[in-house]
Amino acid sequence: MSVKCCIFAVGSELLEGSIVDTNSAWLGSRLTKAGFNVDQVRLIPDNREMIVDIFSRALDEYDLIFTTGGLGPTFDDLTAETVAEAAGLKTVMHEEAKAHMISRLSRYNVTIKDSHYRQAMLPEGCVTFSNGSGTALGFSVSRGKGTIISMPGVPYEMYMMFESHVLPYLRTKFDMKERFSVDIRIGGLPESDVDDVLREFGFPEGMECIINVAKGEIIVKLRGFDKDILDEYADRVKARFPEHFICFGNETIASMLLRLLKEKNLTLSTAESCTGGLIGKELTDVSGSSEVYMGGIIAYSNDVKMRLLRVPENVLIQHGAVSEECAKAMAVGVANQIRTRCAVSVTGVAGPGGGTEEKPVGTVCIGYVVDKTVVTKKYHFSGDREAVRIRTMKTALRELADLIKKQP
Amino acid sequence: MSVKCCIFAVGSELLEGSIVDTNSAWLGSRLTKAGFNVDQVRLIPDNREMIVDIFSRALDEYDLIFTTGGLGPTFDDLTAETVAEAAGLKTVMHEEAKAHMISRLSRYNVTIKDSHYRQAMLPEGCVTFSNGSGTALGFSVSRGKGTIISMPGVPYEMYMMFESHVLPYLRTKFDMKERFSVDIRIGGLPESDVDDVLREFGFPEGMECIINVAKGEIIVKLRGFDKDILDEYADRVKARFPEHFICFGNETIASMLLRLLKEKNLTLSTAESCTGGLIGKELTDVSGSSEVYMGGIIAYSNDVKMRLLRVPENVLIQHGAVSEECAKAMAVGVANQIRTRCAVSVTGVAGPGGGTEEKPVGTVCIGYVVDKTVVTKKYHFSGDREAVRIRTMKTALRELADLIKKQP
Repeated sequence: MSVKCCIFAVGSELLEGSIVDTNSAWLGSRLTKAGFNVDQVRLIPDNREMIVDIFSRALDEYDLIFTTGGLGPTFDDLTAETVAEAAGLKTVMHEEAKAHMISRLSRYNVTIKDSHYRQAMLPEGCVTFSNGSGTALGFSVSRGKGTIISMPGVPYEMYMMFESHVLPYLRTKFDMKERFSVDIRIGGLPESDVDDVLREFGFPEGMECIINVAKGEIIVKLRGFDKDILDEYADRVKARFPEHFICFGNETIASMLLRLLKEKNLTLSTAESCTGGLIGKELTDVSGSSEVYMGGIIAYSNDVKMRLLRVPENVLIQHGAVSEECAKAMAVGVANQIRTRCAVSVTGVAGPGGGTEEKPVGTVCIGYVVDKTVVTKKYHFSGDREAVRIRTMKTALRELADLIKKQP
Repeated sequence: MSVKCCIFAVGSELLEGSIVDTNSAWLGSRLTKAGFNVDQVRLIPDNREMIVDIFSRALDEYDLIFTTGGLGPTFDDLTAETVAEAAGLKTVMHEEAKAHMISRLSRYNVTIKDSHYRQAMLPEGCVTFSNGSGTALGFSVSRGKGTIISMPGVPYEMYMMFESHVLPYLRTKFDMKERFSVDIRIGGLPESDVDDVLREFGFPEGMECIINVAKGEIIVKLRGFDKDILDEYADRVKARFPEHFICFGNETIASMLLRLLKEKNLTLSTAESCTGGLIGKELTDVSGSSEVYMGGIIAYSNDVKMRLLRVPENVLIQHGAVSEECAKAMAVGVANQIRTRCAVSVTGVAGPGGGTEEKPVGTVCIGYVVDKTVVTKKYHFSGDREAVRIRTMKTALRELADLIKKQP
């Protein structure tokens, strides 16, 4: 039985682009994994009539409707009352929601006002989901075959509520069948080359293959309900890209690199100029990174490059800060300073200013140290400042991982 | 005349959450500024029938329909053919699109294959928009009162195409009236307190007030077509939050801090433990930051804290790495090492591991140096690893800015 789902993210700020909706992507990925099919994601403004109309039509068309946002105490928080109206219910003061709200606000010494009680007005007879890190409870009501589940818009409140309470609740209502997926990460090939190979691959019935292009890499996603067959095909896909395969799995390039370093008992430091801390940030996004990543030097100014990284002044005068010579000196310098066996350094022109004819925006030099080996490379990345910085970070981590793989 | 818009982001990967759709938020903000009203944003899977149906119904209902994604050469890129079908047109080989594609691919030494020619098949008679950084042209067709404008899914390709070609085209077709907006950033108050003040404020007809809660700050957005009245009300809102007002404008906390430093002729360095480079990254996201931000030290290990930041071993033994004493030594250490007049340091437990009864996850100490003044503070942030790291970064930048404002 295929369960048809849709996701509504409520809030005018989402349509006007003040905030990027990341909740729907997170929820979409969790629901897909749980075997559900999400075929609509829609952002809805804080407009009472429009919300009621959309919820009401969705209750006819979908088995499961998820909403995020609009549960707060402010005047544009309309989810509880619009869900109730769409389901033909009243809202009532919910004693458990009220007690929860009072208890949380007291803990943070917030004075409780009339407006706060709005948060405790929920559709009558709803099922509630507790919120371990916020004031608003989640809730669920049904009308006919359709069920609406409403959760808060604050991402980590929503994540925790979904994992701890909503998912277990869904398991009691639906015969859930886990959908497995394998990501195959490929670097350094154009999308069309990857597509050509996969188009003629002949995947079995029920297995899906999706190609995503992210800055600096291509992610091939295989998905199906039989894990063994999935793994077999993932290996076959990998075998077709011997030179360009990065890794399997949902791990980021950073976590893959950290895993490799740990396996080989190596430590890492970073010296960053144009990325200004982005590589360190990406590495330390991974919990437990402190086992192999010791730290780094953000050498944004030439003075810091010379004094802290011991880049010879001569190198800067003769070759400039954006040069393979400087990248080399930075990588060796940081490995010495932080006393690590591996290091990576980047120096480049991220733009929009600073480009010259000889070194246009997007020119980046990267230095790699793996034990006694020092390698430098020069790249030309396309895109705006953000894209150049992200491509630089991903390339630096990927190529360092390649060098480490080749180590005995 | 109010122009009714909707935005469709095409791609199954968006619904399944492999990729977060950031294009719609960007486009929504640009369209709102241009005076248009966006009242639907929807993510659509790569399903031919569903796309044609949605596009076709939107052509009846909306003046302007924007689509992003689905213009590539791969088998699931369906936008050109579905737009054509919805508008009752055929697709034809578009000579300009073909020449553009061949010229770009040749530049990157990509071998041109049959599949690439798919990208040049566009709806007959369409208007095209050139693409300065990718292979696919944008295009537009109309049916009845509705116009569809299709752009690529790669963010920076879309941004550049919209600004350089689509917006000028829209100006020739619509009588556009710029909508102004002012962001008022407020820190350190609960949302409900801000809401209470604004609810009774009595904004004039045609002015909108939206409250966004972002990690570590509240953004009050005022919007209207009369810039003078808008500025007047922005000042009135600011005056109601004398203690908690951070800044006006769409500037980030980082760019506000960098502006302050520049005004006062100060330089900055950073020493990061638990944020691992995030603060440096945030500062260097701002183009031109190199004028005041010199660099930093990512001191993830205690060894780096001691050797590069000169944190006395004694401090680590007596108080631990997560202590105000350590934060102080780190801030002073980095200011000395990088020779800057201001510095900020952070050390904390971002989680999920590493928490203790005395120092639970979310405990963060921050040190601030402004000339001879050294201040340290201890915080308890809620949320997951990402939320703790972001709150730490925003708090560090905001409080440093507060200290600098107080400087003579």
